Amino acid sequence: MQTPSSPPQLTLIAVPGIPHIQPGDDLPQLIAAALERAGLSLRAGDVLVITSKLVSKAEGRFVDLRQVTPSERARRVAAVVNKDPRLVEVILGEAQGISRMRRDVLIVRHRLGFTLANAGVDHSNVGRAGEHWVLLLPRDPDASARAIRARLQTLTGVAPGVVISDSHGRPFRLGTVGVAIGLAGLPALWDRRGEPDLYGRTLEVTVTGLGDEIAAAAGLLSGQAAEGLPVVLVRGLRLPEGDGRATELVRPRGLDLYGDFQEGGG
Amino acid sequence: MQTPSSPPQLTLIAVPGIPHIQPGDDLPQLIAAALERAGLSLRAGDVLVITSKLVSKAEGRFVDLRQVTPSERARRVAAVVNKDPRLVEVILGEAQGISRMRRDVLIVRHRLGFTLANAGVDHSNVGRAGEHWVLLLPRDPDASARAIRARLQTLTGVAPGVVISDSHGRPFRLGTVGVAIGLAGLPALWDRRGEPDLYGRTLEVTVTGLGDEIAAAAGLLSGQAAEGLPVVLVRGLRLPEGDGRATELVRPRGLDLYGDFQEGGG
Repeated sequence: MQTPSSPPQLTLIAVPGIPHIQPGDDLPQLIAAALERAGLSLRAGDVLVITSKLVSKAEGRFVDLRQVTPSERARRVAAVVNKDPRLVEVILGEAQGISRMRRDVLIVRHRLGFTLANAGVDHSNVGRAGEHWVLLLPRDPDASARAIRARLQTLTGVAPGVVISDSHGRPFRLGTVGVAIGLAGLPALWDRRGEPDLYGRTLEVTVTGLGDEIAAAAGLLSGQAAEGLPVVLVRGLRLPEGDGRATELVRPRGLDLYGDFQEGGG
Repeated sequence: MQTPSSPPQLTLIAVPGIPHIQPGDDLPQLIAAALERAGLSLRAGDVLVITSKLVSKAEGRFVDLRQVTPSERARRVAAVVNKDPRLVEVILGEAQGISRMRRDVLIVRHRLGFTLANAGVDHSNVGRAGEHWVLLLPRDPDASARAIRARLQTLTGVAPGVVISDSHGRPFRLGTVGVAIGLAGLPALWDRRGEPDLYGRTLEVTVTGLGDEIAAAAGLLSGQAAEGLPVVLVRGLRLPEGDGRATELVRPRGLDLYGDFQEGGG
């Protein structure tokens, strides 16, 4: 139905048949195979959104809480937030400092700069028996995205944009939304300041969180763990030139008016 | 290409030919006409995402700053944030209190509960000659969404979901993203707590900001003022039952760990 006069259109497809991922798996190869089985060929301009959990599993970012000895600080924080001290130890090990804590809530600034609950350390969908396995975020999600993109180019001849997504809560709004924590082959931010608006005025505040909007869009298809759709193909974006990093989406401390730490990182 | 075995897929189409909107315009009628000209018939399950600016214009939410006399408080705040005291007067008139202020930045809690810069009062794309016209957010965007939905049902026989979107900055991340400030005919939040995950564990934190993810997705097409694409049709969402309001996306004060006011609202 797409003709030259068709309006701008975006298509998101949940890639079917992504298998359960084990540490050491060649994730790009499994994605390429799933695309091929589904009759989907990558095209220039395509973006693949991959949940961080999938990347973390391939990278073997599991921690066995039975092997963790909580520090005095972790025990103290655990008492406040009502969580397993060993889990808190793992969370604090991933954090620069504690943004907010209270019963059942531990929001930290992750070592990568992202502010989020529990440093992204996850219990659900870990896929290992027992309550004692948890999964950390990828070690360097921007690097992971770059490597996945390069490997997909080798495998398919096309280098898609890659976004590694996570679901985050927000300070002022309820509900989680997809955000980009890793990114390659497209800009993370789209700076349109200085372009004229519809009426010839200069646009005022128009740096768009492109990587986050893509992750949120994909979240509409992938976000639900029970459905097991962790890879979404986004087709039809008219992307600006550029090759960014998701860490560019982190608000620098100097521009962060809510970034006071309750503990650590000072 | 959609066959019974096709993977879950989402299509977003920027509705072409939406005219410039004037106060009093029958916005749903203009949208229905644009859909018809584009050969797009609404179907059950479709969601229309409409930028708040379009709705505000139809509702005539213009303010002429020449008619505004700034209060003493507005003058004091204006000196801190380096803005026109009359503009600050208008912003404070829309606000419950000031969340953060400093030079060039005025973040408030809007009377509707949303925390955002300048109470959403906008200079760009207002479409009236001179620097003295500004545009407020719709008076009651949830009611607007409900009315637009009902009118579209009358006009087309189909009641689409309606999301009224705005672009907001975020405390910890750079770049604006689309969020829902008005909503009708679909849930604002998707609560999946209690459902089993892939491995039979109970999902932990799975209330999704559905309305916001839809607005962010549409922002990928509509967000850019220069392109003039303020209405996006979203097709293929598998929506849960429900008829929510965007104000449900506002984090209640008791669950808001960053909601201290710098001034007002205390």
